[in-house]
Amino acid sequence: MCRWLCYTGSPVFADALLFKPVNSLVEQSQHAQRSIYTVNGDGFGLGWYGSRPWPGVYHDTQPAWNDDNFHELAAQIRSHMILAHVRATSGTAIQRTNCHPFRHGRWLFQHNGEIGGFDKLKRDLQMEVAPALFPQIRGSTDSETMFYLAASHDLAADPLHALRRAVGTIERLRRMHKIKDGLYMTVALADGQRLVAVRYASDHRAPSLYHSRNLHALHEVGGKTENLPADGILVLSEPLDGVSEHWEKVPESTALVVERGQVRQIPFEPEE
Amino acid sequence: MCRWLCYTGSPVFADALLFKPVNSLVEQSQHAQRSIYTVNGDGFGLGWYGSRPWPGVYHDTQPAWNDDNFHELAAQIRSHMILAHVRATSGTAIQRTNCHPFRHGRWLFQHNGEIGGFDKLKRDLQMEVAPALFPQIRGSTDSETMFYLAASHDLAADPLHALRRAVGTIERLRRMHKIKDGLYMTVALADGQRLVAVRYASDHRAPSLYHSRNLHALHEVGGKTENLPADGILVLSEPLDGVSEHWEKVPESTALVVERGQVRQIPFEPEE
Amino acid sequence: MCRWLCYTGSPVFADALLFKPVNSLVEQSQHAQRSIYTVNGDGFGLGWYGSRPWPGVYHDTQPAWNDDNFHELAAQIRSHMILAHVRATSGTAIQRTNCHPFRHGRWLFQHNGEIGGFDKLKRDLQMEVAPALFPQIRGSTDSETMFYLAASHDLAADPLHALRRAVGTIERLRRMHKIKDGLYMTVALADGQRLVAVRYASDHRAPSLYHSRNLHALHEVGGKTENLPADGILVLSEPLDGVSEHWEKVPESTALVVERGQVRQIPFEPEE
Amino acid sequence: MCRWLCYTGSPVFADALLFKPVNSLVEQSQHAQRSIYTVNGDGFGLGWYGSRPWPGVYHDTQPAWNDDNFHELAAQIRSHMILAHVRATSGTAIQRTNCHPFRHGRWLFQHNGEIGGFDKLKRDLQMEVAPALFPQIRGSTDSETMFYLAASHDLAADPLHALRRAVGTIERLRRMHKIKDGLYMTVALADGQRLVAVRYASDHRAPSLYHSRNLHALHEVGGKTENLPADGILVLSEPLDGVSEHWEKVPESTALVVERGQVRQIPFEPEE
Repeated sequence: MCRWLCYTGSPVFADALLFKPVNSLVEQSQHAQRSIYTVNGDGFGLGWYGSRPWPGVYHDTQPAWNDDNFHELAAQIRSHMILAHVRATSGTAIQRTNCHPFRHGRWLFQHNGEIGGFDKLKRDLQMEVAPALFPQIRGSTDSETMFYLAASHDLAADPLHALRRAVGTIERLRRMHKIKDGLYMTVALADGQRLVAVRYASDHRAPSLYHSRNLHALHEVGGKTENLPADGILVLSEPLDGVSEHWEKVPESTALVVERGQVRQIPFEPEE
Repeated sequence: MCRWLCYTGSPVFADALLFKPVNSLVEQSQHAQRSIYTVNGDGFGLGWYGSRPWPGVYHDTQPAWNDDNFHELAAQIRSHMILAHVRATSGTAIQRTNCHPFRHGRWLFQHNGEIGGFDKLKRDLQMEVAPALFPQIRGSTDSETMFYLAASHDLAADPLHALRRAVGTIERLRRMHKIKDGLYMTVALADGQRLVAVRYASDHRAPSLYHSRNLHALHEVGGKTENLPADGILVLSEPLDGVSEHWEKVPESTALVVERGQVRQIPFEPEE
Repeated sequence: MCRWLCYTGSPVFADALLFKPVNSLVEQSQHAQRSIYTVNGDGFGLGWYGSRPWPGVYHDTQPAWNDDNFHELAAQIRSHMILAHVRATSGTAIQRTNCHPFRHGRWLFQHNGEIGGFDKLKRDLQMEVAPALFPQIRGSTDSETMFYLAASHDLAADPLHALRRAVGTIERLRRMHKIKDGLYMTVALADGQRLVAVRYASDHRAPSLYHSRNLHALHEVGGKTENLPADGILVLSEPLDGVSEHWEKVPESTALVVERGQVRQIPFEPEE
Repeated sequence: MCRWLCYTGSPVFADALLFKPVNSLVEQSQHAQRSIYTVNGDGFGLGWYGSRPWPGVYHDTQPAWNDDNFHELAAQIRSHMILAHVRATSGTAIQRTNCHPFRHGRWLFQHNGEIGGFDKLKRDLQMEVAPALFPQIRGSTDSETMFYLAASHDLAADPLHALRRAVGTIERLRRMHKIKDGLYMTVALADGQRLVAVRYASDHRAPSLYHSRNLHALHEVGGKTENLPADGILVLSEPLDGVSEHWEKVPESTALVVERGQVRQIPFEPEE
């Protein structure tokens, strides 16, 4: 299990989300609150949209809490759309190519959860990836395979549909292989304009997911608060502070579509 | 705060201590029980005496729990004297030269705790290191400085006396600089034959230290037990299993001298 | 292109091969002589057979020449069969799971060269891997895929036949996909008793391969020589010293089978 | 010996300097042309002035040529003042705290060369560092010690004077300790507005140093050229392309002061 967040809105420095809040993503890397796995120390990643046509990504295998480079970059990088992820591996190797967010063209993707029985399903799942995309799979995680399953459909035309199809494929192969362990996921998929997030589990016991509301300021370590843009929206694994009005829990089997400052909730079902 | 262990006795594979017990050192790296700091994920190290005239050392900056190399080596390395350490930094950089155990000639040294106010004391402490040894300081930790303070005395002649003098120097400079934060330490110092360990704190609130007794078998993950040599002795930050007869707590201000299969307890006082 | 060596014979410390000779493997990592690629700084690996039923492996992504851990381990590890590899990537990621030697059960495998057009062939090649082995592919190199192609046949029964079949499969798919770039390879495959090495290229321009003869002592850095066991045999990418009587070049399309202190040369042809 | 560059002028993306030119800094990390040490694979670093009051720094221990993160960041980071460095260690550890540029407040510093006999001089040199700065020395290089010797004087008031004093101290202690090996250096010191560079050696055999002139476009890998800002100025270890009109060699014992688009050459002498 992992922890992640996505921000979209007026540009902010990444450290306002990743380091400063009382329950910042980096704090969650050492002491996650909404998960039985409290330590997410198996690497981390940052994706952001800057002034180049493609998003930047930064991955490393150290724990987020002790990586000076991460701290430095978070203090300098300012962006209108930021994705970040701290990893607790469910078994695959600790290497940069297994760190989220993954990138394909303008798209970034990150995942918390796992595809139960992935070892048994891996070959069949990867055969469902479009042959032209297959050699682009760089790491060995279930998450990256899920991303390329989605990317095998037309992401630009309908990212949510692509995710429904990816999940549908996984569920179909789980049944075929009689895998008892479920698919568990909260995922985020973004292209610099649109952000789609999904909370889903085969057995309706999906990892937690929240989005922000009335996000003017976050409580920070040391009692300070820092103003955040009024139009800023966060979608994330767990709240960054303890102010309950700041956060709304996302129900099971739900997609969030965040565009032009609005969060829409849509029921999410796999599509085979 | 960190966690460490030392083994001496008939040769064992290192994984019998580091990976297999229910509360193995690697388990402690993620979930330490006898410390308010539960995560020791800021690097680790292994020292062992093999068939060369000097001990081998292996250090890396990944968390011990996710480093495949550590697992591999622990399974292959077999030795009559093993020191191992998992680190939680109190602020200094995460780099191999800051990982314990430190080596000087045939000697290995490891430390849990900290020298309070080290930033203020560092210059004066390092000036007390023998000038010929000063350029051998490779990292930036308080622990390595303490080791070189001890090594500035005649380790071979009397390792315990060298530690008393090192602690005496630190306590003298703490007073001189009016440092309120105490010196906290459990340390181990070994040369392949002798093992000396000390539990000490300026304010008598030293980190925990134990040694084994009647150590025939440890409870392992998965309910198994593996026989350990009857002559094996462990000195360590916290017990490797939950069997209370296996472990004896070491009092404050105490040194352990382990030689020829015997553990002697000696009162420990700084010497200025 | 990479550099590798294999040793079999009476036990030696690994540093006698990896660090001490004038053209040691670590020297080759910075200044290879028999290759147009002189720098092999993209990670390295060591495999050895000790006292456990499986061989140890150690991989890291630093250049071999600047990794203190490698130096330490090479000084302590003593074995009757040692494989070691320094890597120059042909494009795939720098990560431990892409470092040679690869391990499968008791078998170790390492490769210098490349499968031309691997990106185009990767999916079809991996489909030829036995489905039960597919999820065991941990990295993203052409080399590891070649190993698992071989391991899909009965390695224990006939390792050379398994290599012929692996190469046959690659050559067949190269033709099918009309790939112009050739397959280039020197490989080593070992199980602790047997060592099989192959030099082969689609266009008969394979990377260099040598084996030792009359190997009593190697010229070392600083003018020293160190005696090596009289029964020791090395198979390797390039000579470790400049004494021409020590080394014999292996012809194109040739397999070496090293067993019980004897080196046999056998013609090597792909088998489809 | 290492390679470095500094850029000041209208903002550019860092990859225009670090990756794209035919003899880019990253190319120099593998194949330096103006040095007998051709491989600079022992870590690298990047410093840049963005929109925060302090400069960003990014250091890693991988070779620059194979670090994906470096490539990513260089493509996203755009700045009016950029320093970058690829390292070939003269013996000190490969760790981030030994990577240049070093930072102190708003100041960045990087060095190519070495302080001969540093091991013998280290203690006395570090005693000359202002006591308040001593604990800020994070690594173990001669270069960082030189920086803190300079920073012990008033950098903001007169950075060139601070460098003269630092070099004067080193030369005085070299004489005192009768060190035969010389001090060799090209250094850059910058605060976001000013850039000072020095080429100096005890024996007038300093490493090469160049600055740009008429820098409109650089020849790039693949035959392309990319326009650079007409006001851009580079100071660097060796030219980024083969167009001789682009580059002017800096004489021995010379300081460059770059301010407001002008390069001034000033004789440089140590000051004791």
